[in-house]
Amino acid sequence: MFEIAYRGTRYHGYQVQKNGLTVCEVLQDALESLLGKREDIVGCSRTDAGVHANHFCFHMETESKIPLQAWPLALNRLLPEDVSVLRVREVKKEFHARYSVYAKEYRYLYFDRPERDPFSSGLCWHVKSRLDEKRMDRLAKELVGVHDFKGFSNAGGSVKDTVRQIYSCDVKRDGDYVILSIRGNGFLYNMVRIIAGTLAQRDMTKERLQKALQSGERKWAGMTAPAEGLYLNRVFYPEEWF
Amino acid sequence: MFEIAYRGTRYHGYQVQKNGLTVCEVLQDALESLLGKREDIVGCSRTDAGVHANHFCFHMETESKIPLQAWPLALNRLLPEDVSVLRVREVKKEFHARYSVYAKEYRYLYFDRPERDPFSSGLCWHVKSRLDEKRMDRLAKELVGVHDFKGFSNAGGSVKDTVRQIYSCDVKRDGDYVILSIRGNGFLYNMVRIIAGTLAQRDMTKERLQKALQSGERKWAGMTAPAEGLYLNRVFYPEEWF
Repeated sequence: MFEIAYRGTRYHGYQVQKNGLTVCEVLQDALESLLGKREDIVGCSRTDAGVHANHFCFHMETESKIPLQAWPLALNRLLPEDVSVLRVREVKKEFHARYSVYAKEYRYLYFDRPERDPFSSGLCWHVKSRLDEKRMDRLAKELVGVHDFKGFSNAGGSVKDTVRQIYSCDVKRDGDYVILSIRGNGFLYNMVRIIAGTLAQRDMTKERLQKALQSGERKWAGMTAPAEGLYLNRVFYPEEWF
Repeated sequence: MFEIAYRGTRYHGYQVQKNGLTVCEVLQDALESLLGKREDIVGCSRTDAGVHANHFCFHMETESKIPLQAWPLALNRLLPEDVSVLRVREVKKEFHARYSVYAKEYRYLYFDRPERDPFSSGLCWHVKSRLDEKRMDRLAKELVGVHDFKGFSNAGGSVKDTVRQIYSCDVKRDGDYVILSIRGNGFLYNMVRIIAGTLAQRDMTKERLQKALQSGERKWAGMTAPAEGLYLNRVFYPEEWF
């Protein structure tokens, strides 16, 4: 299993597609340079265009004899600067980067000063007036638990079962940044971005948020927040696979 | 007086020159779009190509009637994403962005994990093996006080008086980042980058550092650390000017 991080700005998401450069593709290119043949790799998640990852995992089968600890630097020499291999671990044969995941944590980064930050363009959602992070945190707590999140997903997802469990959902301020952290057993298409948009909406109430949860209608939740503020922050696997 | 921040990656420093794009130039372009004529502006400091600023000041004279608080957003609409106007203040007529400075603070950012950070390319010095920040902090304390820093400057500076006062010099760790903060009444050409290189040198000793200070010979100090890790962090002016 390969643990990586990437800045998503230049990419049309993780998953290979026809219309543009993807993270999967540059990983396969680097692996091909290293191993002399093109390998299939399986990612833990699809991420949208522009979304970042502080931690993302993929697996592949290989007969290569390169020692585990030599892989990161060997691959980082072949990868572009916005993708980094952090660690490579051996896993049992039945491990699957996508299906073995038992929890994921996302972060959403808002920047709420009128004047932009010249260092973070593409790395946060620049909302130009001050957010009330305490109010947002109180609303966030309504999402914790087992809920049907159908009202927090956009058309385009293919799953039928829209019930997910959220373990924690917190909003904190760090200077001119507001950080939403959400951990759960799974997330629907655009779910974290819709939650980020909903919590940032200035006239959002507990009642309306409950209506969005209970009705399953998309119209009660807020806007889909821009991709550039979203980070897949951590992917969790049971220790038994290692 | 204009308080700005910029990411220096794309620029050949602050000061206008023939060979490449400079921060001063893009500021003059934006001001020209706003005011309809090209103004001379005076910066607080020259910065090298690739060096960043969390806080940088310049002044100009103008007869414009634009209210002070409207300038930042008006200019930020006309500036590229890597330059941001934070605040504009009125100053007394004799104020001079460069000569009225009484102290400056720089930061130098090292990243010391073997695997790169995909989010910080161009924003830190990636040293691939672990630094000893406690040792570096002890060495840093040797620089505090009034010293002749001739041995910590590179050819190219034009000043004759090489005595400067350092008020504080600290090295701290934050995860995989090590941060050097140095505040003083003035800095020679490349002085902070040489200090950053010297503190990071693994065989540097207090004795050798003292030799560099006392002899004034460049050879005793360490290498000039790369520009990309350096930030002008804060410029100080006496309150009397405002």
